[in-house]
Amino acid sequence: MENTTASRRELLKNAALFAAAAPLVAAPAWAQQKELLGSPSASTGADPWKGLKVGVASYTFVRLPLEVCIDGIKRLDMHYVSIKDKHLPMNSSTEQRKAVVQKFKDAGIAVISCGVVDIKNEAEANTAFSYAKDIGVPVIVAYPRLDTLPLLDKLVKQHDIKIAIHNHGPENKDYKSPYDAMNAIEKFDKRIGLCIDVGHTKRAGVEPVEAIRKCKERLYDVHMKDIAFATGKNVGVEVGRGVLDIRGMLQALLDIGFKGHVGFEFEKAAENPLPGLAESIGYTKGVISDMKPAQPAA
Amino acid sequence: MENTTASRRELLKNAALFAAAAPLVAAPAWAQQKELLGSPSASTGADPWKGLKVGVASYTFVRLPLEVCIDGIKRLDMHYVSIKDKHLPMNSSTEQRKAVVQKFKDAGIAVISCGVVDIKNEAEANTAFSYAKDIGVPVIVAYPRLDTLPLLDKLVKQHDIKIAIHNHGPENKDYKSPYDAMNAIEKFDKRIGLCIDVGHTKRAGVEPVEAIRKCKERLYDVHMKDIAFATGKNVGVEVGRGVLDIRGMLQALLDIGFKGHVGFEFEKAAENPLPGLAESIGYTKGVISDMKPAQPAA
Repeated sequence: MENTTASRRELLKNAALFAAAAPLVAAPAWAQQKELLGSPSASTGADPWKGLKVGVASYTFVRLPLEVCIDGIKRLDMHYVSIKDKHLPMNSSTEQRKAVVQKFKDAGIAVISCGVVDIKNEAEANTAFSYAKDIGVPVIVAYPRLDTLPLLDKLVKQHDIKIAIHNHGPENKDYKSPYDAMNAIEKFDKRIGLCIDVGHTKRAGVEPVEAIRKCKERLYDVHMKDIAFATGKNVGVEVGRGVLDIRGMLQALLDIGFKGHVGFEFEKAAENPLPGLAESIGYTKGVISDMKPAQPAA
Repeated sequence: MENTTASRRELLKNAALFAAAAPLVAAPAWAQQKELLGSPSASTGADPWKGLKVGVASYTFVRLPLEVCIDGIKRLDMHYVSIKDKHLPMNSSTEQRKAVVQKFKDAGIAVISCGVVDIKNEAEANTAFSYAKDIGVPVIVAYPRLDTLPLLDKLVKQHDIKIAIHNHGPENKDYKSPYDAMNAIEKFDKRIGLCIDVGHTKRAGVEPVEAIRKCKERLYDVHMKDIAFATGKNVGVEVGRGVLDIRGMLQALLDIGFKGHVGFEFEKAAENPLPGLAESIGYTKGVISDMKPAQPAA
């Protein structure tokens, strides 16, 4: 019985802490939603994600149309998305871009970043920023070639939109781990930073928990997932079934008061990702359920 | 960094404890399975359910055919099922019963109980026991009318198969909470016991955590779920989104060294329950991930 009481007390305390912190952080989209079933906070009124902006990378639905993607994210009670070009092509018009953002909004989902956007040259760089501006996101998750970085240094200043370099794992020549990206960008504007893909990070021989802590000053997005094997081929699995330290990563994100998007990217069953994505989100929500909320940055 | 290290140490310790306990408990079905991705224990080799026999009540798939039910349970990496008559009618032949059990077995799923079986008279009681015998389960989850209890007292002795009375919540006249069932059965053979439905228990005004602990001597099955509201209409939700104390219930089950089936029963989206069931299972696996394994009963 002790444990139950402790857990309750903890939840209530967390709820109180979160309520106290509320004026300091932007109200998350879910807080403005009226959900029939009172989810996600029926028992305590507290944010189940403890202040983290947890959502879905729409790449999860890369083989499925926009509507399926929106319905899936909504069903899982998620309220942020990082949109992939599959669901809104890079060469779309401003009008098309605003229409897609509106569709997500109508489903209670805020478009919070985009990507992974390939940036190989100046034209692609300019498109990326106009795209980001049109959809109103503060972060572009990207794979910029190394020689585009001086240009991006100018563009992030000009548009005040961040670039978050996505590390692609050991197969990639430019950014195997977040540390390769950090080395490449340290001399540029701080608005050029990282999207840590925790799976590729691990496969590149770097502990994601350590990378989150070490790169916190330039961390703007996270691809959350689990992988079956720590080395070798990228084999995605439901979060909790693989080798990554889920609790450790969440603790690191809470400890650094991470303000960016934490987007689930589930790659195991592209034709029908919903059950695996649901299990992944559920597992992570279960793990974080007894952790203390993020402290707002001082 | 401390938390990560602590969590790792804990996991390894748990893995060691589980390994040590292994000879004392029957090897769960999943342990005999070769899974392509090494799930569910890629990181530690430990049982993610900490020694509990966690599975699915096939009632979750009550509007769907047997094959969909089997595929769904398999996809979620679950290896126990409590089978509902929808997927194997009570009036089936011995041959049909054995064929359905074999189908589950082929998918790596052990049929561990059946029900909820309605027992209104002697004929239905006899059918229930022949059914249970044919499918090889030690427990029949049932709703026996009060006047059948003296007969069941004989049958549980005769067949050495347990009856687990399912409490149906405040709408039911016989068994609103597990305590009503306990009162009705205390004078009978101990093999007449309970299946605590944690949702109906809460709605009947009894804390499921307390009921699990108080009824442990006669607890033979559990229906695991979450509900949107603590009182009134039964509104099932994904585990973690509702009002039940999931951590407390798991702690109670571990503390009493529960040996019976803990079956997820997800009732929110009967036409397509897989995503919600997946989220529920994921959440519960996440919550239990930092808990100590069940101690084998002394």
